Amino acid sequence: MIVVLQPGALPPEIETIKEKLRELGCEFFTTRNTQRIMLHITGGEAHRAPSALKLLPGIARVVSVTSPYKLASREVQTEKSIIDLGEGLTVGGDKIVVMAGPCAVENEKTLFRTAEKVAAAGAGVLRGGAFKPRTSPYSFQGLAEKGLQLLAAARERTGLKIVTEVINVQDVELVAAYADILQIGARNMQNYPLLQKVGQQNRPVLLKRGLAATIKEWLMAAEYILSAGNFNVILCERGIRTFENYTRNTLDISAVPLVHALSHLPVVVDPSHSCGDSRLVPDLSRAAIASGADGLLIEVHPEPQQAYCDGEQSLTPREFHLLMESLPGLARACGRCLETGPAKLKNSTKQKTTHYVAASTP
Amino acid sequence: MIVVLQPGALPPEIETIKEKLRELGCEFFTTRNTQRIMLHITGGEAHRAPSALKLLPGIARVVSVTSPYKLASREVQTEKSIIDLGEGLTVGGDKIVVMAGPCAVENEKTLFRTAEKVAAAGAGVLRGGAFKPRTSPYSFQGLAEKGLQLLAAARERTGLKIVTEVINVQDVELVAAYADILQIGARNMQNYPLLQKVGQQNRPVLLKRGLAATIKEWLMAAEYILSAGNFNVILCERGIRTFENYTRNTLDISAVPLVHALSHLPVVVDPSHSCGDSRLVPDLSRAAIASGADGLLIEVHPEPQQAYCDGEQSLTPREFHLLMESLPGLARACGRCLETGPAKLKNSTKQKTTHYVAASTP
Amino acid sequence: MIVVLQPGALPPEIETIKEKLRELGCEFFTTRNTQRIMLHITGGEAHRAPSALKLLPGIARVVSVTSPYKLASREVQTEKSIIDLGEGLTVGGDKIVVMAGPCAVENEKTLFRTAEKVAAAGAGVLRGGAFKPRTSPYSFQGLAEKGLQLLAAARERTGLKIVTEVINVQDVELVAAYADILQIGARNMQNYPLLQKVGQQNRPVLLKRGLAATIKEWLMAAEYILSAGNFNVILCERGIRTFENYTRNTLDISAVPLVHALSHLPVVVDPSHSCGDSRLVPDLSRAAIASGADGLLIEVHPEPQQAYCDGEQSLTPREFHLLMESLPGLARACGRCLETGPAKLKNSTKQKTTHYVAASTP
Amino acid sequence: MIVVLQPGALPPEIETIKEKLRELGCEFFTTRNTQRIMLHITGGEAHRAPSALKLLPGIARVVSVTSPYKLASREVQTEKSIIDLGEGLTVGGDKIVVMAGPCAVENEKTLFRTAEKVAAAGAGVLRGGAFKPRTSPYSFQGLAEKGLQLLAAARERTGLKIVTEVINVQDVELVAAYADILQIGARNMQNYPLLQKVGQQNRPVLLKRGLAATIKEWLMAAEYILSAGNFNVILCERGIRTFENYTRNTLDISAVPLVHALSHLPVVVDPSHSCGDSRLVPDLSRAAIASGADGLLIEVHPEPQQAYCDGEQSLTPREFHLLMESLPGLARACGRCLETGPAKLKNSTKQKTTHYVAASTP
Repeated sequence: MIVVLQPGALPPEIETIKEKLRELGCEFFTTRNTQRIMLHITGGEAHRAPSALKLLPGIARVVSVTSPYKLASREVQTEKSIIDLGEGLTVGGDKIVVMAGPCAVENEKTLFRTAEKVAAAGAGVLRGGAFKPRTSPYSFQGLAEKGLQLLAAARERTGLKIVTEVINVQDVELVAAYADILQIGARNMQNYPLLQKVGQQNRPVLLKRGLAATIKEWLMAAEYILSAGNFNVILCERGIRTFENYTRNTLDISAVPLVHALSHLPVVVDPSHSCGDSRLVPDLSRAAIASGADGLLIEVHPEPQQAYCDGEQSLTPREFHLLMESLPGLARACGRCLETGPAKLKNSTKQKTTHYVAASTP
Repeated sequence: MIVVLQPGALPPEIETIKEKLRELGCEFFTTRNTQRIMLHITGGEAHRAPSALKLLPGIARVVSVTSPYKLASREVQTEKSIIDLGEGLTVGGDKIVVMAGPCAVENEKTLFRTAEKVAAAGAGVLRGGAFKPRTSPYSFQGLAEKGLQLLAAARERTGLKIVTEVINVQDVELVAAYADILQIGARNMQNYPLLQKVGQQNRPVLLKRGLAATIKEWLMAAEYILSAGNFNVILCERGIRTFENYTRNTLDISAVPLVHALSHLPVVVDPSHSCGDSRLVPDLSRAAIASGADGLLIEVHPEPQQAYCDGEQSLTPREFHLLMESLPGLARACGRCLETGPAKLKNSTKQKTTHYVAASTP
Repeated sequence: MIVVLQPGALPPEIETIKEKLRELGCEFFTTRNTQRIMLHITGGEAHRAPSALKLLPGIARVVSVTSPYKLASREVQTEKSIIDLGEGLTVGGDKIVVMAGPCAVENEKTLFRTAEKVAAAGAGVLRGGAFKPRTSPYSFQGLAEKGLQLLAAARERTGLKIVTEVINVQDVELVAAYADILQIGARNMQNYPLLQKVGQQNRPVLLKRGLAATIKEWLMAAEYILSAGNFNVILCERGIRTFENYTRNTLDISAVPLVHALSHLPVVVDPSHSCGDSRLVPDLSRAAIASGADGLLIEVHPEPQQAYCDGEQSLTPREFHLLMESLPGLARACGRCLETGPAKLKNSTKQKTTHYVAASTP
Repeated sequence: MIVVLQPGALPPEIETIKEKLRELGCEFFTTRNTQRIMLHITGGEAHRAPSALKLLPGIARVVSVTSPYKLASREVQTEKSIIDLGEGLTVGGDKIVVMAGPCAVENEKTLFRTAEKVAAAGAGVLRGGAFKPRTSPYSFQGLAEKGLQLLAAARERTGLKIVTEVINVQDVELVAAYADILQIGARNMQNYPLLQKVGQQNRPVLLKRGLAATIKEWLMAAEYILSAGNFNVILCERGIRTFENYTRNTLDISAVPLVHALSHLPVVVDPSHSCGDSRLVPDLSRAAIASGADGLLIEVHPEPQQAYCDGEQSLTPREFHLLMESLPGLARACGRCLETGPAKLKNSTKQKTTHYVAASTP
């Protein structure tokens, strides 16, 4: 049972509600974000709450949530969530956002070159890993804070937002100081201390689906972040593990409409990890948009064959540019439009972009 | 090694080529369709064939095929195959064909009503099972020949082509007498006697992917049909079995661009069986087209909750109509167009359609 | 609802029971095997059958079966089925039967040599494919009837029973004329016309689990055979398809106790196809016995590296001999014993074995 | 390339070896455990190391390791590792160790009762979760340090060793202060910071296989721990995620002989999580031993239907006792023997056990 408070409910009103709940013998805890405060009720005579509370001021509605993910469910919030990345960039609304960049931050030159190219092609967010969870302890593990600094510098140059992965609970605050979006990778989808920690940050979180996670488990992982107080969660489908091994993973395209049916959270698709083959990325990107995805996360590298990791799934800037050219028409045919990134924006509203860069640099 | 003969190669020329192959100690067998004759060479000094044969008349080219599926591979035929269904209806070209209808043929009234509705909405082919492979021996097994007769009658009324499944090698000729396309279901993808039998028919074959078949195994199954002489194979992705059970199967959307990269055969998508949930079918249909699919196979039933099987994945005629309205714009955004079915055609060229119906009825 | 008749129920008694069922508006069909006759009731007022029939003579019991597989379920038969292979060899009782031999029958010399070796080591049944379902149409497809004749000749020499696969509904009677056990391969587990056909034969059937079949689907496939009148079904777990590709398939060892919990049918394990790696076969064979399996199906080839197919998973006769030596002690520790095959039997009861060979040769 | 030093190699000898490696332009790092010191060489002219080093004193051998997991591979260590748990209890030798107890530590009474029962039945190690990684943020998350204290108290009473899970890198030292074995759960198999942290502890680690991890990925995860300096790694197969959902997971029994072929590390089996069904646990336990497993990890709860989690897969003490009685004979039939736990030991060597408890309590 969840009590959704009215925006602007007054402290005495809230206290009266809590008092009533105590009378019913219920336990409860509070979650809040910029838009709403909710009381989550369990135990006691919770079933009596709807009638017992209905006349009290300050209550928007009392919802009985049947799904195991509560805050993430459509039951508690019927309208889609729109995640604000700042400077007018949002995920979950009409505009489709493209996030692109290298698998790993390798060095300044390669990163800047990639960032400029993807910005010029219309991307809104730069992706790049500074902390890399690698299968082998002997593989390149990322540049760590040096990588974060390079990402921030690339943001300054291009106006792109930054999404980058955090893999250690002890690094969350460090990464949050640089990144616009904190990425939780597939391997960490059920790393609950990490989920709780990013749930306490004031930063949107991109939550990748675990490679053998069901839709329900994925939404339950989101619930960990939401219940810790951070409602700005973007889900990311990145392929699941199946028997088929021609592709690296199997893009579960059904997850897009299914998540939209079950949850109010936005969902983006990573076609690069899904298939592991750059030849398939453009068709899968288009399929993702046609399925209703709110964005794309695409690997781009100026010299894929030289990439430190995942080169075989990276588009060249040229291939990315060609893909981007095909998307606006497709988005329109699906009743959406493509977000015009900062590069195109800059030409018309340079002042605003400049201001933004200054403000968001740590 | 495959020797592709020139169209119109003369019998003495062919005999000279075979004589040369015998000299090299090679074994070979011949496949032919309306467009080409090919000699498949193994053993002996096959590697010497390209140089030994190169000056002989009647040869278009000698191809060394490295993939295990040979006739199905892009190596032996670089241009896409276009399967002719008659009356100008084709699968594999620019036009996207929609096949729709009930899971099973239940009775005349329901079938005719469905056929008229899907024809009116723009479908080109009517689907419907007369022989149903059911998990339980106690479930409805289909109307058998009575079902085939109803399908033929529906074709006469609407001008729609007919695709229907054959599950028994002994029924192949019977089904081929009625159907425009012979469907091989997922459970029979590796039923080799059945594949060989449909390979001997003069009818296009829709080959569904087995629910745990790799792309390679699927193309090898197609190879069984091709090597028996029937080159008119349409592949159909219908979802694979994975750990995810929120959906009935997992639509492997990557299979579409992957098959197009590896093979010249057209590929259509069955979103209904892929997800088992009518709410997801429209988005998955659009995703399929955006991924490059050559057509769709969709279940439609006037009263899904009354359907003998698979009601939960069937669209109503109204839902199907709405889906169809969204497709032409999407197809155009992908550089394709949507096939206008016989219903729309009929208005302008009634004579031709009437003629067709008479000709194709058994 | 199933009415199990008493052994020796008289025709007039049965007719009275049927009359009563007609009065209740029920439909029914009859299945019979050597041990029992059952009436399967559906429709009408079937729920009233237990009380309406209870006083009628000739009825053993009326069972309400809740599982979708009825004849295969433990509900309808609580004691385990014991399949009689003749000459005192049974599957499903206390004795564990080992079936061994080459993947394919290749030629007389190799087959006889293998048969003699596996018989000497204690196997009771010779396996070997005369009809091979191969992924590629260009691979060796088996010796067909010539292979069946060689198997029969090997049986004459060794006293081993024969299990061999049938893949085509049109070959069922031919194969049944030679084989002691008809094998249905994994690819054909849902080839329903084939299941119905072997269900009409007077021969035990070894039903392999499909590589992506659930336990329920597997038991439903058995139900097709049982409901056609053949109650002598032996289930065979042979590995399922999963993401793990170090092994060819993944032996689902849990299937053994699970099938025993759900069904009265015996279950044997094929460790060779399960893992595809001869190094693992001995440990998996022992695991199968410890899990409660009623037998083993093992590939043995005198020269695995020369085998026409599946050499990498075949034991040499020497390796097989060593494995067999380890099994009696293990079987005893599990409260079972190992069937002593005809070779060991022959020494003590030569007359009987000779008689048997004459009788069973077609 | 790995340089394995002789036990007792002198510091000047080691320095000379390093100097030689620097001359070859190689990079290297050192790992050491109680038995050996190894230098891991990469880059430069590493291929010349075998000849360049061969005459230097202090070197046992120079190994070129081709598998991606190096320290975990059989190439670098041909004999099996035996993990010493103290008091003569080992994992990986001839004796099979049984670890048993509740899924979660719930309260003193239940834990002590369970501990006494499993000790009496012959278990050597008590399992029980104080930190529980739960799919839902609203589920019971474990008693944390209070749970660890109860486990330590149960150890004092029974002499059982303790294995318990650690899920947060920040809790590793706390858990290591109480536990005899640190458990890494399936969800954290690729939580690399956590692996590195337990790799720095002086405690054996039980590394569960991730539910969609390949054998290779699992051994690579072990490599993270080994390369951090902790060689006492016990692998635990606990079922993988497949399409089959009758069982909670699918026990991959082949993993046992396969890991033994590829690695020197011991491997135990958790039949409880593998199947999620207490009825199947005894047969799967026996299968595990017959496949060569070095131990078992079994859930036992005095009142399964009252358990906070996973009750349906927990044996009662009585069922556990019956299972244990069946194991010694089976172990002997497999050339092993069953470890006699502290309870049986206590009767003969009470002093020693008492001493141990005092020493190991934090």
